[in-house]
Amino acid sequence: MADSPNCDLKSLSPLQLFERVTEQGEKVRALKAGKAPKDEIDAAVRMLLSLKLSYKATTGQDYQAGLPPKDLVLINNGTNKEEDEDFVDPWTVQTSNAKGVDYAKLIVRFGSSKIDTDLINRIERATGQKPHRFLRRGIFFSHRDMDQILDAYENKKSFYLYTGRGPSSQAMHVGHLIQFIFAKWLQEVFDVPLVIQLTDDEKYLWKDLTTEKAYEYARENAKDIIACGFDINKTFIFSDLDYLGTSTGFYKNIVKVQKHVTFNQVKGIFGFTDSDCIGKISFPAIQAAPSFSSSFPQIFNGKENIQCLIPCAIDQDPYFRMTRDVAPRIGQPKPALLHSVFFPALQGAQTKMSASDPNSSIFLTDTPKQIKTKINKHAFSGGRDTIEEHRKYGGNCDVDVSFMYLTFFLEDDDRLEQLKQAYTSGELLTGELKKVLIETLQPLIAAHQERRKQVTDEVVKQFMTPRKLAFEF
Amino acid sequence: MADSPNCDLKSLSPLQLFERVTEQGEKVRALKAGKAPKDEIDAAVRMLLSLKLSYKATTGQDYQAGLPPKDLVLINNGTNKEEDEDFVDPWTVQTSNAKGVDYAKLIVRFGSSKIDTDLINRIERATGQKPHRFLRRGIFFSHRDMDQILDAYENKKSFYLYTGRGPSSQAMHVGHLIQFIFAKWLQEVFDVPLVIQLTDDEKYLWKDLTTEKAYEYARENAKDIIACGFDINKTFIFSDLDYLGTSTGFYKNIVKVQKHVTFNQVKGIFGFTDSDCIGKISFPAIQAAPSFSSSFPQIFNGKENIQCLIPCAIDQDPYFRMTRDVAPRIGQPKPALLHSVFFPALQGAQTKMSASDPNSSIFLTDTPKQIKTKINKHAFSGGRDTIEEHRKYGGNCDVDVSFMYLTFFLEDDDRLEQLKQAYTSGELLTGELKKVLIETLQPLIAAHQERRKQVTDEVVKQFMTPRKLAFEF
Repeated sequence: MADSPNCDLKSLSPLQLFERVTEQGEKVRALKAGKAPKDEIDAAVRMLLSLKLSYKATTGQDYQAGLPPKDLVLINNGTNKEEDEDFVDPWTVQTSNAKGVDYAKLIVRFGSSKIDTDLINRIERATGQKPHRFLRRGIFFSHRDMDQILDAYENKKSFYLYTGRGPSSQAMHVGHLIQFIFAKWLQEVFDVPLVIQLTDDEKYLWKDLTTEKAYEYARENAKDIIACGFDINKTFIFSDLDYLGTSTGFYKNIVKVQKHVTFNQVKGIFGFTDSDCIGKISFPAIQAAPSFSSSFPQIFNGKENIQCLIPCAIDQDPYFRMTRDVAPRIGQPKPALLHSVFFPALQGAQTKMSASDPNSSIFLTDTPKQIKTKINKHAFSGGRDTIEEHRKYGGNCDVDVSFMYLTFFLEDDDRLEQLKQAYTSGELLTGELKKVLIETLQPLIAAHQERRKQVTDEVVKQFMTPRKLAFEF
Repeated sequence: MADSPNCDLKSLSPLQLFERVTEQGEKVRALKAGKAPKDEIDAAVRMLLSLKLSYKATTGQDYQAGLPPKDLVLINNGTNKEEDEDFVDPWTVQTSNAKGVDYAKLIVRFGSSKIDTDLINRIERATGQKPHRFLRRGIFFSHRDMDQILDAYENKKSFYLYTGRGPSSQAMHVGHLIQFIFAKWLQEVFDVPLVIQLTDDEKYLWKDLTTEKAYEYARENAKDIIACGFDINKTFIFSDLDYLGTSTGFYKNIVKVQKHVTFNQVKGIFGFTDSDCIGKISFPAIQAAPSFSSSFPQIFNGKENIQCLIPCAIDQDPYFRMTRDVAPRIGQPKPALLHSVFFPALQGAQTKMSASDPNSSIFLTDTPKQIKTKINKHAFSGGRDTIEEHRKYGGNCDVDVSFMYLTFFLEDDDRLEQLKQAYTSGELLTGELKKVLIETLQPLIAAHQERRKQVTDEVVKQFMTPRKLAFEF
């Protein structure tokens, strides 16, 4: 590929972009007419799609051949908001930039704080442990009130961790592991309890599922979560459909949140409409309530003021902005947050990996062969069109999905840096980089599958039984 | 009083009504100027207020002295909807008619069925018991699918009863007893289990109450309910705040209802707005869910198809219209209903008795002296202004609150008929009728207070513990 598709597109006018899309379209047609190699045609098509996305992000219009854009500068009153704004909410992540969402801008827009070197150093001092690679590499990049968690921790005041998952299907993909891998690390280095919410009620409300099916998915997903290696004495996993009917504290917190949030507010935060069912409208309170320790009387002996820390992907932040707004009004501490970037789809960082598109994801159930095929076939490459060009100009790690995945899963910092330099210089070819990723993921997923086999229904039942954990509060 | 205020007001034009209000206003001023007896002034003021209410109901405008009404016939496109429509929803009951709400019209408007002589006779045949005075006297006047309940019952298929109360304060009044007295009778003659929902979560959401206070009211109200004489082996009383966290089936039914009702629907049914909290918006599902036997796995062994019969005041019907709409879509039988009229306020049948206005109600905690004073002082009379006029023209039982109360509480049909004839003929004076009511209510309330004293916290706890009842399903 001659160029990373979006390297300098932002500086182009709508008309210039229009011309670039037209040119690329002609190139694709020419390649197809000339029966060019499939790889070459595919690369040109990807570039065309990417250019069309940029065109739409800049102009707000779909590209139409022969129809140049209207003068949007005039229409938009001199500014073009769409140009550099990514779309992020709990259901959709979309950007026109192949490098992915602009996280620095998201921090400003969401009003959170950057996880900077000072904070990472402070976590290292507090725990006496080397910071996790997700911290070292900016994968967890944003936070709310993590300094307060550390203030309290340094004064021997403990906290608990809360994270979760919406069990929309039986299959989890590697992207789903990020928050659990990180939660496990946090649990170990801080030695704190962890609660994991499986929002089977949410999936029942949003999808065409029965409550029974949603609960079954929750239990299957629990197996994959448990296979991450959580300590049964320190971890409570719960399905909403199940736990709500067995906890004396959970519903009370839900109804308290529900009293303090109006339809206008959830409409603004989540985009609900009058045609949405009342279950969706009131659901945000159910994701909010585990932020309060009184939802877990069995763990905290009914204590209500235990601070909560939530590691999650940044798209879940709207729920917890709402929660933090309500907390002081119901006499509870605001939960603190650690936000991760999205795990990119194989096809590129414009959107996050999705369990509903099998080719966008590497599943935890994939065989070594499937992993190899998917990466070789679908992983978006930042390499050049020909070996000669690649050797001469080098690859682009900023848009290369294989390299991105290695930043998530390759523990060795030096090795990662070597790969980056070799790829950027052109010394390492795309196929070679993909091979490193394949060889990293294959044993990791095989080991996960091995551990998952050990997770019996009885073990799941134990994790999901409300009980005292190995902590005194 | 010369006339019942609304006897023929419906036939008056807005302008004629305007003149009647003006005349009555002048009469009140003249009486006050002439230092007339307090009783006489009070009666004239009541008549004035009643005329003003009729004026507003007919014209949609507040009466303003010197400002005759606009020609509403033109404005309202030839029909005046307000004229004969009562306002009834779960929070407000309002009518301009001193006889109370027009229940025949409500049946048409709500699409329910009249409880006619045939149905009452059928209940008598099925149970082998004399129909309760509430059936004999049209106090339970409307139903949905009671014939299906009887069809099934005659084929040895059982059902269960569900009723409830919103515990908005510690104090219950005699009007609150109606549905419990009737539920107790139904339970006895059909020999079926009864569940009683105390919507402390609703009161927390609607009122300025803590969850703790709402739950305390629920437990206090439970004592008054238990004092009606329910059989502990056949009755389960529950607080939402408490039971939701102890039942595996209740929340599942709630979320099923919540998935099948949109904000648009609850907006239409209950008048919610975008500024209402999400708790209110989703609450109707919580009142709906006890209509399904799977909400009570401990009682019904998890059986899901047990038919439910709900005795309630007609203002609760919107909740159950919604429930009946959802039921088939979640694979559940529609609950059947028996609707009662409202219990009128002491001041007259234009509105229902309200616990929040102490002078509109006779409380279950009132002393014999308080009962006597309240009835003598506040019970709206259908009698005439002077003894001479009363002897000559007779009283009007249709608007006389003391007589209405006797239809609720005096068991003896013959005695009630004698009182009616004597009052209508002028033989019985207002003070004498009030004396009969006082002598009926005093021992009834004293006995209730005596039984309530026996209801210990331990007994409340037993009634409120989820458990198997003395039935096989």
